[in-house]
Amino acid sequence: MRKKQPLFSLLTAAILASSSAVASDTATPKVTVSDWLAQSSSSDWRELDAENTLYLELPAGRVIIELASDFAPKHISNIKALVREGFYQNIPIVRVQDNYVVQWNEPDGATPKPLKQAKRSIAAEFTVKLPANFAFTALADFDGYAPKTGHVNGFAMAMDPSNNSGWLTHCYGAVGIGRDNEADSGSGTSMYVVTGHAPRHLDRNITLVGTVRQGMALLSTLPRGQGDMGFYTSADQYTYIKDITLATDLPPEKRTALQVLRTDTATFKGVVEAQRNRGGDWYLHPAGYIEVCNVRVPVRETQVK
Amino acid sequence: MRKKQPLFSLLTAAILASSSAVASDTATPKVTVSDWLAQSSSSDWRELDAENTLYLELPAGRVIIELASDFAPKHISNIKALVREGFYQNIPIVRVQDNYVVQWNEPDGATPKPLKQAKRSIAAEFTVKLPANFAFTALADFDGYAPKTGHVNGFAMAMDPSNNSGWLTHCYGAVGIGRDNEADSGSGTSMYVVTGHAPRHLDRNITLVGTVRQGMALLSTLPRGQGDMGFYTSADQYTYIKDITLATDLPPEKRTALQVLRTDTATFKGVVEAQRNRGGDWYLHPAGYIEVCNVRVPVRETQVK
Repeated sequence: MRKKQPLFSLLTAAILASSSAVASDTATPKVTVSDWLAQSSSSDWRELDAENTLYLELPAGRVIIELASDFAPKHISNIKALVREGFYQNIPIVRVQDNYVVQWNEPDGATPKPLKQAKRSIAAEFTVKLPANFAFTALADFDGYAPKTGHVNGFAMAMDPSNNSGWLTHCYGAVGIGRDNEADSGSGTSMYVVTGHAPRHLDRNITLVGTVRQGMALLSTLPRGQGDMGFYTSADQYTYIKDITLATDLPPEKRTALQVLRTDTATFKGVVEAQRNRGGDWYLHPAGYIEVCNVRVPVRETQVK
Repeated sequence: MRKKQPLFSLLTAAILASSSAVASDTATPKVTVSDWLAQSSSSDWRELDAENTLYLELPAGRVIIELASDFAPKHISNIKALVREGFYQNIPIVRVQDNYVVQWNEPDGATPKPLKQAKRSIAAEFTVKLPANFAFTALADFDGYAPKTGHVNGFAMAMDPSNNSGWLTHCYGAVGIGRDNEADSGSGTSMYVVTGHAPRHLDRNITLVGTVRQGMALLSTLPRGQGDMGFYTSADQYTYIKDITLATDLPPEKRTALQVLRTDTATFKGVVEAQRNRGGDWYLHPAGYIEVCNVRVPVRETQVK
């Protein structure tokens, strides 16, 4: 931790010197993530996919979730149905467990909301079969929880080349589907967001659908529940969700214009290397390693509200 | 995530069946952490070391930090001097960065508090030389950031057998010493607590002194700073520390009686295995792996306040 707030000086000379060979840079490279972003081009970024972007509207503001349609198509389709049927209006956050998750669903004992097209249970999508030519940006770094990890479309993922199965990883900000003991007992009427150290042991045990791109602090600062597993012990502790909407269903002026760094670019590889072996003047011992949940995928807002 | 709050049924039969051979249990062991704790004996636990326990008193309550005197003896000695000189009284929390750290120190531009015996800079203790016979509970699991990881006295640690150096790891709740760019520029007048996904790239770059044993939520729910790196942008956003005291300096009735599970016990090995391959009825795919920051060392309060 720096004792004081530093000035962010962009080390342009260092970028020019090393941008073509960052991975083979010296033991203490000086290039930082900020440097890489400062020299990025507009083609390094993409808009969030409005068809797969949820706005979780809380009293304190908007949490923006991007859905990863390659990984849980049935659940994502059902979430969209739930959104469009108004299911999430006034659904409470019932659980806030420190260093773990925030979770919302109908409270225990409440009369279930009637559904139209949406379903209350769907076959699990803990892993998906990847196409033979599936392209992602793999990390060379060892991972204990999976044979391979990396990123695709800005989502942290893992895969097993032995059977071409793939899954999203439980990193900070990952969004998933609550279930009971039966694998197929979830559908999106209960959802959660990871707000702590990556609980990777949940991988392949539960369906993940996407990640939070903006607004994590609105979830991570919620009062912790005092019951077992962080459940609130009475309804007056709930925070109620105003609604969850799909970006594509809102007029452009009500959307938040966010861009995420493309993870299939040289700039992203530079960003990862700058996180693997931190640049700048502060770091003295480069880690020489990064695990998938310590890779922070850059996001930027492109419209002044 | 379970959709509903489960009953905690203690699987006593399962414990009896597998307690002698948990590591070689079936692919889906049923023993949980709760089971292990329910059958623990009093000798599996130890009291916090009052000589090395800090009470960080915030307006909202007490955060309890245990110091690891084996790892940063000079900094810990200086922190005790700072405590006893009243340095921490009314020191503000100046930085709260989401998914990263909470940090306190004198604000930028403030007149430095006068010190007596305490110092403002101390030689870095990023690593320590371990005795040749140093005993700790090693994890067999691979770690990308260090040759070996494990626990000693309830602290997560790493070590390099090639030179017998050891260091505490930046897991959730780790407590460290802020510094400027120079390695020796810290002393405890600036401190931080990890409140997010383990930033293990900080390991061996900065001096860690201990870990939070209770009260993390008092730090992790603080409003995030809106400036660069989570610094607050004005003093009216600060939370002021009332004081930091040493447990040993307080009369017994003002202390909090906490116990931590001994990490040199068979019970702890069982707890780790129950976290490596989760028991109970919910988990379907055992991870078969655990990384050091996903091991949660159990703590219990032994006195009803």
